[in-house]
Amino acid sequence: MSLDVVILAAGQGSRMRSRLPKVLHPLAGRPMLQRVVDAARTLGDARLHVVIGHGAKRIESAFAGQGLDFVVQSEQLGTGHAVAQALASLGDGPVLVLYGDVPLIRGETLERLIEGLDHDRLNLLTVELADPSGYGRIIRDGSGRISSIVEHKDASLEQRRVRECNTGILATTGALLKRWLPKLSSANAQGEYYLTDIVAMARCEGIEIDAAQPEHVQEVAGVNDRTQLAALERWLQREQAERVMAEGATLSDPSRFELRGSLEVGFDVSIDVGCVFEGEVSLGENVSVGPYCVIRDANIGPGTRIEAHSVIDGAEIEGDSQIGPFARLRPGTVLARGVRIGNFVETKQARIGAGSKVNHLSYIGDARIGRDTNVGAGTITCNYDGVNKHRTEIGDEVFVGSNTALVAPITIGDRVTIAAGSTLTQAVEHDRLVVARSRQVEKTGWQRPKKG
Amino acid sequence: MSLDVVILAAGQGSRMRSRLPKVLHPLAGRPMLQRVVDAARTLGDARLHVVIGHGAKRIESAFAGQGLDFVVQSEQLGTGHAVAQALASLGDGPVLVLYGDVPLIRGETLERLIEGLDHDRLNLLTVELADPSGYGRIIRDGSGRISSIVEHKDASLEQRRVRECNTGILATTGALLKRWLPKLSSANAQGEYYLTDIVAMARCEGIEIDAAQPEHVQEVAGVNDRTQLAALERWLQREQAERVMAEGATLSDPSRFELRGSLEVGFDVSIDVGCVFEGEVSLGENVSVGPYCVIRDANIGPGTRIEAHSVIDGAEIEGDSQIGPFARLRPGTVLARGVRIGNFVETKQARIGAGSKVNHLSYIGDARIGRDTNVGAGTITCNYDGVNKHRTEIGDEVFVGSNTALVAPITIGDRVTIAAGSTLTQAVEHDRLVVARSRQVEKTGWQRPKKG
Amino acid sequence: MSLDVVILAAGQGSRMRSRLPKVLHPLAGRPMLQRVVDAARTLGDARLHVVIGHGAKRIESAFAGQGLDFVVQSEQLGTGHAVAQALASLGDGPVLVLYGDVPLIRGETLERLIEGLDHDRLNLLTVELADPSGYGRIIRDGSGRISSIVEHKDASLEQRRVRECNTGILATTGALLKRWLPKLSSANAQGEYYLTDIVAMARCEGIEIDAAQPEHVQEVAGVNDRTQLAALERWLQREQAERVMAEGATLSDPSRFELRGSLEVGFDVSIDVGCVFEGEVSLGENVSVGPYCVIRDANIGPGTRIEAHSVIDGAEIEGDSQIGPFARLRPGTVLARGVRIGNFVETKQARIGAGSKVNHLSYIGDARIGRDTNVGAGTITCNYDGVNKHRTEIGDEVFVGSNTALVAPITIGDRVTIAAGSTLTQAVEHDRLVVARSRQVEKTGWQRPKKG
Repeated sequence: MSLDVVILAAGQGSRMRSRLPKVLHPLAGRPMLQRVVDAARTLGDARLHVVIGHGAKRIESAFAGQGLDFVVQSEQLGTGHAVAQALASLGDGPVLVLYGDVPLIRGETLERLIEGLDHDRLNLLTVELADPSGYGRIIRDGSGRISSIVEHKDASLEQRRVRECNTGILATTGALLKRWLPKLSSANAQGEYYLTDIVAMARCEGIEIDAAQPEHVQEVAGVNDRTQLAALERWLQREQAERVMAEGATLSDPSRFELRGSLEVGFDVSIDVGCVFEGEVSLGENVSVGPYCVIRDANIGPGTRIEAHSVIDGAEIEGDSQIGPFARLRPGTVLARGVRIGNFVETKQARIGAGSKVNHLSYIGDARIGRDTNVGAGTITCNYDGVNKHRTEIGDEVFVGSNTALVAPITIGDRVTIAAGSTLTQAVEHDRLVVARSRQVEKTGWQRPKKG
Repeated sequence: MSLDVVILAAGQGSRMRSRLPKVLHPLAGRPMLQRVVDAARTLGDARLHVVIGHGAKRIESAFAGQGLDFVVQSEQLGTGHAVAQALASLGDGPVLVLYGDVPLIRGETLERLIEGLDHDRLNLLTVELADPSGYGRIIRDGSGRISSIVEHKDASLEQRRVRECNTGILATTGALLKRWLPKLSSANAQGEYYLTDIVAMARCEGIEIDAAQPEHVQEVAGVNDRTQLAALERWLQREQAERVMAEGATLSDPSRFELRGSLEVGFDVSIDVGCVFEGEVSLGENVSVGPYCVIRDANIGPGTRIEAHSVIDGAEIEGDSQIGPFARLRPGTVLARGVRIGNFVETKQARIGAGSKVNHLSYIGDARIGRDTNVGAGTITCNYDGVNKHRTEIGDEVFVGSNTALVAPITIGDRVTIAAGSTLTQAVEHDRLVVARSRQVEKTGWQRPKKG
Repeated sequence: MSLDVVILAAGQGSRMRSRLPKVLHPLAGRPMLQRVVDAARTLGDARLHVVIGHGAKRIESAFAGQGLDFVVQSEQLGTGHAVAQALASLGDGPVLVLYGDVPLIRGETLERLIEGLDHDRLNLLTVELADPSGYGRIIRDGSGRISSIVEHKDASLEQRRVRECNTGILATTGALLKRWLPKLSSANAQGEYYLTDIVAMARCEGIEIDAAQPEHVQEVAGVNDRTQLAALERWLQREQAERVMAEGATLSDPSRFELRGSLEVGFDVSIDVGCVFEGEVSLGENVSVGPYCVIRDANIGPGTRIEAHSVIDGAEIEGDSQIGPFARLRPGTVLARGVRIGNFVETKQARIGAGSKVNHLSYIGDARIGRDTNVGAGTITCNYDGVNKHRTEIGDEVFVGSNTALVAPITIGDRVTIAAGSTLTQAVEHDRLVVARSRQVEKTGWQRPKKG
C-alpha cells in the first residue's frame, strides 16, 4: 500500500528574524525542508504533500520540479489544522507526518515508525530526554501501553518525572485521519487544532498505539531560532567528520571540519584544521589538504598536496600535484600529473600539462599549457579585450619569462623561450626565443624628488 | 545621592608573566579595566576612583582623558588597605567596590547591588558555585540573614557544603567605610588588611547586610593567569555570538566567531566559520561573509558577498558587491554599488565607481576609478615616487589592459583603452587607445642555457 | 642495573583504514611510536626493543639510526607472545613493557612505575576510570594488595563496580619474564598468549605486586581508529596551549592553537585564533601573530607583528618588522630590523636590510637587498632562466619602481632609482636613474571590439 507523507512547512519562524521562510534555511548547505524531503524519499515511492503558508511562493519555486504536492494553509491554526489541509489528497493507507523544521530525521527511523501500517493503528515517534521539562510526556499504563500524552504544564509531579516525550512526528492511516481530524477542537488556550489530540481519540476507540524511537535525539530536534540552527549544524558536521575518519582520513580537528555536500576520501587522506568542503569533492589516496583550504566541486587525484589557504572550485587534478599555499583554482581548471601551482596564482578554464609549473603571482585564464612548461612569476594571460574572451595556447617545454603578458588570442609553440618582461601579441613558432621589451637606459643629471 | 565607585587595580598579576599591568590585558579587544569602568559608567554620573600601584603610570596614560580619579597604593597590603587609600576622596553616600581584574561584571547586576543605599547598609554580591571549594562561604542564620563570611580553610564540614560564595564585590556607604576601614587589622597569616572583615563589623553593629547575585557566574570571575583570561574571552565571545544570531545572522559556528568591538547586522546576514570582526563593523541585509575573513571598521552594504580569506580594514561598500577571495581592502577604500574586487587585489584610498571590476593581482592606491571600468590583471597604480604619494584618476568605462603600470600623478579619460603591458606616465584624453610597449622580435641562433 | 624497554608495535591497526603502520601515524606532528620511544629515553640509557610485525620494514626505516633493537613478531599471537620475541635480548634486570599505540605515556609516570625493580617484583600501571566498562579490573584483597586482574566479561557485579583498571603497561624483571613467559597458555577464546596472565603467576609465587598511576588518563589511552587519534591530538594540543599560556603568551582561543614541534615564547606574545606552528619556532617578546598564520622553523624577533593569513617557513626575522597579511616567507629569508613585507609577497633565499620595504605583489628570490630600500608593487626578481638560478643584488636606499623585472644575475648599486615598468638585465651603478620602457603613444581611428 503506497505511503502518503505530509510535511508541515507553513510556519513563519519569526524568531529566526529572517525574510527567508524558515524551512529554506540551510543546514550543511542543504535547506532544512530538502533534508526532510530527502529522508522521506528513502521510504520508496511515497507521495509527498508539503503544507505551506508563510513564504509559500518562495518555497514552491525552490522545490520546483521535485514532484511535491503543495497544499496551502492560509491561516496557521495548529498542527491538526495543517494536516487537515492535505486530507483531500491522502489515500486511506499509511500516512506519515513530518515537520519541515525538524530537519535531521533519518530514513531508518522513519522505516521503523511506519511499520505495521497495513492496518489501522497509530505510531508515535517518542524520545527519552535527559531534561524533559517543557515537553509533552508519554503516559503509559501498567502494561506499558501508551494511554495519553500530557503537556508539561498539565502534568502531575509524578508525570513530570517521565522522560519519554512526544516529538510530534507520527504515522497512522489516512482512513483514521479522515475520521479524526474533522473532530479536532480548538477550544484550548491557544485556540489551535492540535494533531496530538488524535492520541486520545485512538485510545478512546481502542486503536492500537505504539511508539518508535530515533537513534539520536538530534533527529527530532526542531529549529526555532538561529542558535538552534547552529547547534544542529554542529552536530551534523561532527557526525560527518566521524564518517570521514572512519573511511580513512585523518582530521586534525574533527570539530573544525565543514562539509556541505559530499566528500569521498581514499586511504590516508589527511585534512588539516579548518577546511571547508562544498558540493561534490573527492580526494584520492594520500592527498593532504593544508589548513584553511576551501574546496568545492573538485576531484583531486592521489598523492596531491594542497597547501594552506588554497581555494579550489571546479577543478580536476589528476594526481601528484602540489597546489598552494594561496592558490586559487577556478572552474575549468584541469591539471595533469605532477603540476605545481604556487602562491598568489589564479587559474580559470585552464588545462595544464604534466610536470608544468606556475609558481608565483600569475593569472592563467582560458588557456592550455603543454607539459613541462615553466611559467614565470607575474605572468598574465590577457584573455579579455573588454568585450570578448580569447584563448592562449602554450606548447610543451616552454619557458615563459617572468612578468610576461600574453595578449590572447595567441599561440606559443613548443620549446619557445619568452624573455622576461615581454608583452606578446603574435603567435610564436616552435623553438624560438622571443623578446618584446625596451632597451635599458640611464638618465644622468636626475635628482630624486623632494618631500612635497 | 551621588555614587562613588572604587576600582581596585593595583595588583601585579605575576602569574600573567607580563610586562603589561594585568588590568590592561584586553578581553575581546578592550582592556579589562576599561570593561569595569564602562560597566560602572552605566550607573549614571558616578565618581570613579581607581586604586593603582604596579604599572601605575602605564594605566594612567592608557585612561587619560576619561575623567577617572587615580589613587596610588604604593604598597599592596590587601583589599581593605586599597579601598582605604581612596577614603579621603569618598563622600558619605553610596560606595561601590569593584575589581579591575573581574572584567565581565554587568551594569544590571551593579544596579541591583546598589539598591537601598540611601541609608547605611552593606550589600554583598554573592554567587552560587557548583564547586565552591576554595571560596569564602556566605553563612546565613536561621532567618536567612547573612551573619558572616567564612574562609574555606576555616570552614567546618557543614559550612563547606554551603555553595553561596563571596565575590568581593560589595556596596555600602562612605560613612560606614570611614568608620570601619581604620579599624581593620592585619593580624592574620598574610599580614594584610581584608575588606571582607567589614562584614563582621556590620554584623556587630547591627547594620543590615543583604546580598545580590549576578545573572552569570562569569561576571564575578577574576583573572589571574592567561588560562583564566582565555576562558573569559571564550565565554564573552560566545555571548556575543548569541546576540548576533538573535539579531538575524546565521553563524556557521558560534564558537568560531570573534568580535572585538561592535557589529551591526541586518536580516539574513550569514557569517561563515572563523571570521574576525574588529572595531565598528556593520553588515547590511543579505551580506554573506565567507570563511576566515578579517573585517575591521567597515560598513558593508546589503547584498554584498565577501569571499573566503578576505581582509578588510576601513572600507565603505555601498552594496551588491563581490569581494575576494584573498582581497585586501585598506583604509579609504570606497566602493559604489556592484563593484567586483577579486583575488590578490589590494586597494587603499581608492574610490571605485558602480559596476567597475578589479579582478586579479592588482594594487589600486590613492586612486579614483569611475563606473563600469575594467581593470585588468596585474595593474598597478604607481602612487609613490620614493618620497611623495600621487593620485591616479581613471574615468568611466575605461578598459585597463593587463599588466599596466600607471605612474601617478596621472589622469585617464572616459572610455580610454589601455593596451596590455603598458606603462603610462602621461594623461590620456577621453576615448583614446593608448599603448606603451615594445615590438615583439624573435632572436635566432639562440641556445637555451645549460645546467650550470 | 640497566633497564630494558620492550615496545609492542606489531599490530595492524585495521580500524585505521590505512596503508601506514598504525604506530607511524603522527600526533602533533610526531609518530606515535616516536613519542613512546622518546618517553622511554627519558629514563636514562635504557635498551629499547621494538617488537614489529605489520609494516615492519617501514617502521625500521622510519627509525633508522635511533639505536633501537627491532624484534620481528611474524605472527600476532597476543601481547605475551610479543614480549616473548624479545626475551633473548633481555637481561635479568628491570624490564618495562610499553605499547607503540599508547603514545602519550610520560617519562615521570614511567619513573614511578620502575621503582623498586632492583629485586623481583611486578609493577602494574593502573588507572581509575569514570566508566571502567570493558576494561580489566584490578582486584585487591582486604589489605589492599593486588590479587588479580579480572576481565570485564568475567567480572562479578561487585567486581564491575571497581573503577581501577589495568592499562597493560607494566614493569618487572627480565629474570621473572624468562621464567613466566614460557609458561603462558593460549587456551582461551582468542587463542592468544596474554601478558596479563603473569599477574596470576606472580600472585601464585608470592611475588610482590604493586601499582602506579599516571597523572592523566590520556597517558594510557590507546589508539585504534582515527577518532581516537583525533581525541588524543586535541588533548595534547590543549596541554601544549596551557604550557604556552603559562609561559606568557596570550592565546585568543587555546582550543584553536596547533603546535607540531617546539615553540618558545617571550613575555607578552599574542597569538590570534587558528595559528599553526610546526618544527622549531621562537617568538620574541611582544611578537603578535594574527589569525590563521602558519609558521614553521622560524625565529621571529621581538616586537614583530605578523598579520593575518601569513605563511612563514624557514625564516629569520631580527625584530620590529611587520609582515603580512598574506605574506609568504620561504626558507632562507633573513630580515633585518624594521623590515616590512606586505600582501601577496613571496620571499625565498632573500636577505633584506634594515628598514627596507616590499609591500605589494612581489617575488623576491635568491636576492640580497640593502637597507632602506623600497621595492615597488609587482616587482619580480627573475632568478630562473629555465635551467639555473641566479642572484639579484640590490643596494641601500634604492627605489625600485613598480612592475619592475630584474633579470638575474644583476647588481643594482646604492641609491639607484628604477623607473616603474622597467625590465633590467644589466648592472646599474650607484646613484643612477635607470629606465627600460617604451614611449606612450595614442592610436587614432581605433574602435573597441564588438561582442563576438
